[in-house]
Amino acid sequence: MDSIISFMVPHSSCLTYNGKNGVSALPNRASQVLHNEEPDSHIHPKVPGWFSEDCPIWPGQAHFLRVEKILFQGKSKYQSMMVFQSSTYGKVFVLDGALQLTEKDECSYQEMMTHLPLCSIPNPKKVMLIGGGDGGILREISRHSSVEQIDICEIDTMLIDVYKEFFPDVAIGYEDCRVKLHVTDGTLFLNSVPSGTYDAIIVDAFDPIRPDHELFESEFFELVSKALRPGGVLCIQAESIWFKSLDIEQLLTKCRQIFKGCVDYAWTTVPAYPSGVIGFLLCSTDGPCVDFRNPINPIDPQNYGISKQPLKFYTTEVHSAAFCLPSFAKKFTDPKAKSSSCNGFDRERH
Amino acid sequence: MDSIISFMVPHSSCLTYNGKNGVSALPNRASQVLHNEEPDSHIHPKVPGWFSEDCPIWPGQAHFLRVEKILFQGKSKYQSMMVFQSSTYGKVFVLDGALQLTEKDECSYQEMMTHLPLCSIPNPKKVMLIGGGDGGILREISRHSSVEQIDICEIDTMLIDVYKEFFPDVAIGYEDCRVKLHVTDGTLFLNSVPSGTYDAIIVDAFDPIRPDHELFESEFFELVSKALRPGGVLCIQAESIWFKSLDIEQLLTKCRQIFKGCVDYAWTTVPAYPSGVIGFLLCSTDGPCVDFRNPINPIDPQNYGISKQPLKFYTTEVHSAAFCLPSFAKKFTDPKAKSSSCNGFDRERH
Repeated sequence: MDSIISFMVPHSSCLTYNGKNGVSALPNRASQVLHNEEPDSHIHPKVPGWFSEDCPIWPGQAHFLRVEKILFQGKSKYQSMMVFQSSTYGKVFVLDGALQLTEKDECSYQEMMTHLPLCSIPNPKKVMLIGGGDGGILREISRHSSVEQIDICEIDTMLIDVYKEFFPDVAIGYEDCRVKLHVTDGTLFLNSVPSGTYDAIIVDAFDPIRPDHELFESEFFELVSKALRPGGVLCIQAESIWFKSLDIEQLLTKCRQIFKGCVDYAWTTVPAYPSGVIGFLLCSTDGPCVDFRNPINPIDPQNYGISKQPLKFYTTEVHSAAFCLPSFAKKFTDPKAKSSSCNGFDRERH
Repeated sequence: MDSIISFMVPHSSCLTYNGKNGVSALPNRASQVLHNEEPDSHIHPKVPGWFSEDCPIWPGQAHFLRVEKILFQGKSKYQSMMVFQSSTYGKVFVLDGALQLTEKDECSYQEMMTHLPLCSIPNPKKVMLIGGGDGGILREISRHSSVEQIDICEIDTMLIDVYKEFFPDVAIGYEDCRVKLHVTDGTLFLNSVPSGTYDAIIVDAFDPIRPDHELFESEFFELVSKALRPGGVLCIQAESIWFKSLDIEQLLTKCRQIFKGCVDYAWTTVPAYPSGVIGFLLCSTDGPCVDFRNPINPIDPQNYGISKQPLKFYTTEVHSAAFCLPSFAKKFTDPKAKSSSCNGFDRERH
């Protein structure tokens, strides 16, 4: 099957990450940058002025966005990045050819990814974020006044710099004084933290999700489980209900064995992602039972945290609704497996 | 802004509606057919083998589907049609360049469009469908054993024939003996029916929805309201929460004035539609109060009606969840307007 083209923009409008061309506010991290003299190989002349993802795991479809202007293009030692102004989705960030974030719909992803876990447990204090270098999840965590410590592991500092420059309303999360950035691999970091450290761990590391990725290996989940306190929670992005590139049922079964608490699956609408939805896998460790469907820790609507804005997407109603799956996907959440997982710590369900 | 291309398939693979070329099972309706000697003007050579909608009301984005084979292409006296085999969405039906239905995701649209209204009222007996010529909503109505009469107004019989030929699992709805097809304009038909005839009217007539369309004129809604019994219900497709091509807030305000019962807004995921979601406007007339959010008329899971399949998408939980709107869209459903609309007929809400 032919692969569909990716960055369909004229070369002449590309900026590279070299401290010039209007990106001078970026710190000079030349050591990280592979100068991009050869324009990105994804650029294609067939449909000038349009961008589309190149996603081999979702073959046969492509979402095109019209490019008004390319604002940035460069490569760190880990990955290639592009920022463009789209005509309908605001600014768009692209990582290795995959759409990561748009200004129009980032609210649904960031708010759900953060508040689904944090609103499901009482008084979260220590939170860890693996990936999520854009800062949007940090921004959302900052709405929780109970939180005392936010550790983020992001390996690519150029990515952070690019977000700070072009998406200040997203990267604003870094301004929360509770945030501590660890420029290291999340798995390495997890290996170094004492058991039972965190109330919540959020993993926003890779897109698209590949079934063979190490994040979906048992070893990774065991590290996360060990780093969580009893009754602590994990939230990790987990594909769309509409596609089969990841075996969600198998993933949930594996997590039930490892986490031994509650394991559930939710989803939300994100128009710019393939199929327009994205799912979240939520797990709690053995301990005080967590009922992800009935949030017990509502967000104070007056507390914007470091953000300048009220919530755009999340509500308590939307939280519970996110767990209502279509008939064809109900097998993901086997109620028998769930009810048997709360070992003596069960609490009254509403 | 350049318009993005539509049918990007080689001419040589097109079939026209002329009773030959493998569509011989279609009745000969030559009088309705503008023979398509000149290939469809949407065909474009730039990205061979891919289809995309040409939707000027959703500029700046386009969803591309890979075409395995064009199965049919033709024109009735009302509109042009194309059926193709896609590589990931099954067979796809295209009307005047706009994607209407795919086999992969038609379940969410048809089931929600039907069961949101019919499960919200007790024992619906007389149901009217305007448009929906594909038959999928008829198939869904047939799951309701209380229904005695199903009137469908579809003006384009060629559309029905094409669906019967290429989408038998959708068009199977016509086989229900309660269905009566009226080949006429829905508005004309509404003018002819006695007041208070129907328990429910479902309008599935046009896609994309245009703000200036007659279906969104007060006159049309007044006709629907008159044709419904007291406490009868309307369901009409009403755009995506993510786009502003239709002023949903204004539409709901207008409907509250006309229907004088309950007016509410729900949404569901339909990956093949722009933004991946579609909305539904639900209205009830003055009379016994309807609470769309809490369905009172569950579907018997053993009763498949004329369908050979159990429900793929709809559940009672999904029904209620469909009304949970993101913060940014909550203004659509002004609770003040809703609570004042149930004039003395209010029932206990769960």
